[in-house]
Amino acid sequence: MKTISIINLKGGVAKTISATNIAHILAVVHNKRVLLVDNDKQGNASKMFGLHSYDKPSVAELMTTHNVNLDEIIAHTQYANLDLIPANMTLLKANLEVMLDTTRPQQTRFKTALRSVEDEYDYCIIDNAPDINISTINALVASDDILIPIKIDKFAFDGLAELKEQIENTKEDLNPGLCLRGCLVTCYQRNEVNKQGEEWLKTQTEYPVFNTHIRRTEKVDESTFATTPIIEYSRRCGAARDYLKFVEEYLSK
Amino acid sequence: MKTISIINLKGGVAKTISATNIAHILAVVHNKRVLLVDNDKQGNASKMFGLHSYDKPSVAELMTTHNVNLDEIIAHTQYANLDLIPANMTLLKANLEVMLDTTRPQQTRFKTALRSVEDEYDYCIIDNAPDINISTINALVASDDILIPIKIDKFAFDGLAELKEQIENTKEDLNPGLCLRGCLVTCYQRNEVNKQGEEWLKTQTEYPVFNTHIRRTEKVDESTFATTPIIEYSRRCGAARDYLKFVEEYLSK
Repeated sequence: MKTISIINLKGGVAKTISATNIAHILAVVHNKRVLLVDNDKQGNASKMFGLHSYDKPSVAELMTTHNVNLDEIIAHTQYANLDLIPANMTLLKANLEVMLDTTRPQQTRFKTALRSVEDEYDYCIIDNAPDINISTINALVASDDILIPIKIDKFAFDGLAELKEQIENTKEDLNPGLCLRGCLVTCYQRNEVNKQGEEWLKTQTEYPVFNTHIRRTEKVDESTFATTPIIEYSRRCGAARDYLKFVEEYLSK
Repeated sequence: MKTISIINLKGGVAKTISATNIAHILAVVHNKRVLLVDNDKQGNASKMFGLHSYDKPSVAELMTTHNVNLDEIIAHTQYANLDLIPANMTLLKANLEVMLDTTRPQQTRFKTALRSVEDEYDYCIIDNAPDINISTINALVASDDILIPIKIDKFAFDGLAELKEQIENTKEDLNPGLCLRGCLVTCYQRNEVNKQGEEWLKTQTEYPVFNTHIRRTEKVDESTFATTPIIEYSRRCGAARDYLKFVEEYLSK
């Protein structure tokens, strides 16, 4: 099982849209067995699949339960091959609890829990909150690859330095195999700011950048209201074609 | 100086829109001297006044500098009587630094810093991140009143219990005068869900609710793109009239 963290400290850069659509495309188009982990207390990835709830266990229990049984937390989506570990606001309290619990390791809870299902899935995609907290650190420790969705605007580079430092600390201390696979330009619009911003991004050497960018279309917003993955909602729109192409680019490297 | 924290653990409930417009109305309509504190690393309140920057000190320095001089951090907006302490992504690192610094009190840094300007302002409005972290706890410790913007939807009550617990802990341990003034219904639409949700909210006794709600209009979204307070952008729209009415309701109580 290959584990990919989708992360950016900025909000509003299409993290959840990217995580849910990449997971859906890997499952439905490429026939991979995919586990999507919602690691944001806002629970938007869970809502996208109609699985946000307070009646069932969630990623909070993954964080706090010793010898957790993932089968009791994993929920099935309506798509074959695509399962989900949901999140809700209880994650906030779980994170505080983990910080106070010094009786067992705090940073390796995702890693240990996910190990128990590593033969059942080909890919695990973790959708992270725009934050550095104990559950995002757990995600980085459990991951092989990191993808950073980035929207080209005046403030696009906010927080990238902080994120990179955190990635490097995690790599050094807890997960030497962690790889920053690259930035994925999202919400791309045909204008000078986007064109120049993307060109500049590709010339710098600090952060790798994927060739494929994701175009901004209203269909994406509509698809979140319809809680339907973009290739089901509007297969011919720019963003659907871009996500399909992006997954191919990712898999080919 | 009366200090008001605008807070909700949920994102997307119009916290920043409420904080900036309430601050602007207090300053411009009611002629109060107002200090707005941006306490969210996303810096959206700072962006609303064109004051988001990495070249000038921000709320991060307020958190980490001993005997901080607020005059060096406070920025003037284009509106008379309305000043701002801006925020940017450096707040994330500042929060981590505060957590590790056990040489001075961690939770009272806002309170101590704001005391130095309490004769210069009538109101201090703090726009908080959708989180409980050391800088939101600092805001609660420094505040007299708490306002909770709330959007009536399926998940409106997510996190309210956690927030209330945090408010009560802060009150007990660090700030006995803290008052949960009430929930402010935002993004109100004329439909059955909103009508019934608001009615239910007003019948429960756990959380007080203001009479005035803020109607959802496209003008609000437009005003954020135009980075112009709503009563300047479109004084006659529903939301502008509602914010004016809300501030009157708040002041009359």
